[in-house]
Amino acid sequence: MADSIVIFGASGDLTSRKLIPAIYRLFAKGRLPTGSRIVGVSRSEFEHEEWRKMLRESTEQFAGDQFDAETWNAFSQSIFYQSGDINSAQDFRKLAKFLDDVEPDNGCGRVYYLSTMPQLYEVAIKQLGEAGLADDTNGFRRVIIEKPFGTDLETAKALNTSIHNVFREDQIYRIDHYLGKETVQNIFALRFANSIFEPIWNRNYVDHVQITVAEEVMVGRRGGYYDKSGILRDMFQNHILQLMMITAMEPPARYDASLVRDEKVKVLHSIRKMTGGDFAADTVRGQYAGYLDEEGVPPKSQTATFAVLKLFCDNWRWKGVPFYLRSGKGMSCRTTQIVIQFKNVPHILFGDTTREPLGNRLVMQVQPAEGIQLHFETKVPDAEMKTRTSTLDFSFRNVVGGDSMPDAYQRLLLDSLLGDASLFARSDEVELAWGIIDPIIAAWNSPAAPQLHSYPTGIWGPAQSAAWIESQNREWFDVCPVLK
Amino acid sequence: MADSIVIFGASGDLTSRKLIPAIYRLFAKGRLPTGSRIVGVSRSEFEHEEWRKMLRESTEQFAGDQFDAETWNAFSQSIFYQSGDINSAQDFRKLAKFLDDVEPDNGCGRVYYLSTMPQLYEVAIKQLGEAGLADDTNGFRRVIIEKPFGTDLETAKALNTSIHNVFREDQIYRIDHYLGKETVQNIFALRFANSIFEPIWNRNYVDHVQITVAEEVMVGRRGGYYDKSGILRDMFQNHILQLMMITAMEPPARYDASLVRDEKVKVLHSIRKMTGGDFAADTVRGQYAGYLDEEGVPPKSQTATFAVLKLFCDNWRWKGVPFYLRSGKGMSCRTTQIVIQFKNVPHILFGDTTREPLGNRLVMQVQPAEGIQLHFETKVPDAEMKTRTSTLDFSFRNVVGGDSMPDAYQRLLLDSLLGDASLFARSDEVELAWGIIDPIIAAWNSPAAPQLHSYPTGIWGPAQSAAWIESQNREWFDVCPVLK
Repeated sequence: MADSIVIFGASGDLTSRKLIPAIYRLFAKGRLPTGSRIVGVSRSEFEHEEWRKMLRESTEQFAGDQFDAETWNAFSQSIFYQSGDINSAQDFRKLAKFLDDVEPDNGCGRVYYLSTMPQLYEVAIKQLGEAGLADDTNGFRRVIIEKPFGTDLETAKALNTSIHNVFREDQIYRIDHYLGKETVQNIFALRFANSIFEPIWNRNYVDHVQITVAEEVMVGRRGGYYDKSGILRDMFQNHILQLMMITAMEPPARYDASLVRDEKVKVLHSIRKMTGGDFAADTVRGQYAGYLDEEGVPPKSQTATFAVLKLFCDNWRWKGVPFYLRSGKGMSCRTTQIVIQFKNVPHILFGDTTREPLGNRLVMQVQPAEGIQLHFETKVPDAEMKTRTSTLDFSFRNVVGGDSMPDAYQRLLLDSLLGDASLFARSDEVELAWGIIDPIIAAWNSPAAPQLHSYPTGIWGPAQSAAWIESQNREWFDVCPVLK
Repeated sequence: MADSIVIFGASGDLTSRKLIPAIYRLFAKGRLPTGSRIVGVSRSEFEHEEWRKMLRESTEQFAGDQFDAETWNAFSQSIFYQSGDINSAQDFRKLAKFLDDVEPDNGCGRVYYLSTMPQLYEVAIKQLGEAGLADDTNGFRRVIIEKPFGTDLETAKALNTSIHNVFREDQIYRIDHYLGKETVQNIFALRFANSIFEPIWNRNYVDHVQITVAEEVMVGRRGGYYDKSGILRDMFQNHILQLMMITAMEPPARYDASLVRDEKVKVLHSIRKMTGGDFAADTVRGQYAGYLDEEGVPPKSQTATFAVLKLFCDNWRWKGVPFYLRSGKGMSCRTTQIVIQFKNVPHILFGDTTREPLGNRLVMQVQPAEGIQLHFETKVPDAEMKTRTSTLDFSFRNVVGGDSMPDAYQRLLLDSLLGDASLFARSDEVELAWGIIDPIIAAWNSPAAPQLHSYPTGIWGPAQSAAWIESQNREWFDVCPVLK
């Protein structure tokens, strides 16, 4: 079980901020297979010891309270560095030799983590294949691929084809770190380990679903990259559609990578394709004021930094129930939340003329205030029979403490070592997701595009977003979570 | 709207501890109809001012922080005292004269509150009739009758007949102070102002219902009275059956006294009558150790201080779902709670071999920790796909503060003045409830009686109670509430 984690693009931010701290914590908790090693690969030249020292500093910073010098010293002995250029076949042969030398026997498994620039994925995969590094005769060989997985359906397909030339689908772990979040996995538990939610989790009882991924930050120094991507590629094709799939899917027969992903893919198949006037009627497009002044952004850019999509699942469970997907930069606060808005009671019993009871609402707080709230009606104390909205509240932090909510990368790295791909995207999933997003991107670049609304930063997107949903007799759940 | 509240048995505990503090608070909140007055009647001789002084002391004690000297002074001017013997027709004529004198005009409404010994109810009613005090030609005349309403079906019927000789049913307000509790009224709100509970509130999703009224106290100085009554008369015929009716009833067409009580009565009609071996199989009977040494208790008394009844509602909603009703003295803590235990998930998805997920559980805390908890499964953070039971929590006290949860008598007294009988028991309701309890009492006094189990005080009743429900693959929710 002494496996190797080989990180390509090892000198990048992700390695020092996320990957090494995550592997370190797995080691500290005794979950990393004993004797496993990490091998960093990038073009820079470092001695092993030099790289370990750099990683110690960053891990101390990013692992926070959980850093312990003695544990680190034990852990760091299993960190190695091998310089190499993704374009050099010779460097891959050197890497193969190094791995053979550093691994105690030839039965070791290997996970290759592609943390390079996306343009290099195809080359890296090809080189792995040509250097014999994909050959899993003696031990497993898996490849983890970071997002973005392509920039549209065509490039995603091409990338899948290239990878499949070298790796079988069951060796490929396409990462979406949202799936590694405890609160996202908890949606499975909420839905399928409880008997009371599933009976009302359908078109008979649900009025609509809201999925919001709000960021407070602006594009910052990523303006050049962001402007080519835009919010639909950056957030919707991956994270938000993943949240929608998990919210909308049927229960799988077992919690098994293949069966879970079959059900998720079924959701994507059932999403109604937008056509004609839908692109203007069922989307909202915004750009925060000041975006055009960001470094790297073209002066007349029409790139959206805020978007709402109204999607429908044409299946028995969800027919007619809108899924409002929303994300933006420069919003009121950072929050990711899924709101199941239930229909109102069919008959109002209590003659309170001052208000209509609100329909029940289940709020799943994905981050940063991990928890669940159920908004329901209770009697107003010390009054005649009137009701008001109260909250049944559950906070993960109250139970486990905020710091011990493990980072998504811990879970995903461990799963890749254990060979559990449940929380990784399959090729058909990625392609179908692009198939949903691509036509919207195309429409937004065409005369059929809805107007690009400007909005000041620090609010919940353009005023037109609120007006638009109100015109459908609904309202956004615009509540910044309170960290308890 | 200047009404009169006439309290018979005015020198009793209930008047000073509950009724006057409740009316005082209604006055302080400006809810008592302006110019209303309270007239106390009992055999003792007091001057108005003397009685006011006594009531001031007790109200200061029992109204706690909410007592305000200035408000009291204003209020106390409307308190009067008229001595009188329930058995004296002349005293009733004197009372009639006094009321005519003290009321500003002959359009005043009157509520007669019978807080006397139960044996005097029939005489009092008769005297009210003969003195012309029930005549509502010029203003309403209503009578509030405290529990116990009879001691069995026969006496309850006789009492109803006597009252109906003088008052129409719509003038009669049979009090069960449990119905005045905010948390009991909240069950109406929970069920009928929320869309998510009603769909699962039936035999398809509910495994069983537990209603527990636990008292920590023993019989104290009431041993003589209690021994004749026993727990079934003291708690089950009234409070517990009321809680069961509200939990089990169908939604009424409107929140209206007549329609609500029609639905409650339907529940009583649907309760399956015990016969033959049921009395032994479906009841548990206990007596706390030391009960026989209590003052006034006969040395070989077989009176139960603890009971469990397993009842079924034979109707479409509840067929086959047991309602476990339980009450006892000398138990672990004081708590009244209703537990809806839902069935487990039909199919367990996550292969956790260490435990089976618990079925969901809705706990309605009636007192003293007024609130609602929903027990549900969440993912164990930082672990593979395993779940554990967590709690969605709502506390009335966190919202309104404990002290402002109004006492039941405030609500019930005000409702009687306003003519809303929704929260009072109707004649058929009382008689049907006795019809359910009487055969059990009879069986317990017969050779068919289950064994009377002794239990030490400070626990959840006899060990046989736990063993009995465990033999049905269920368990008691034995949790003392935490006051937050």
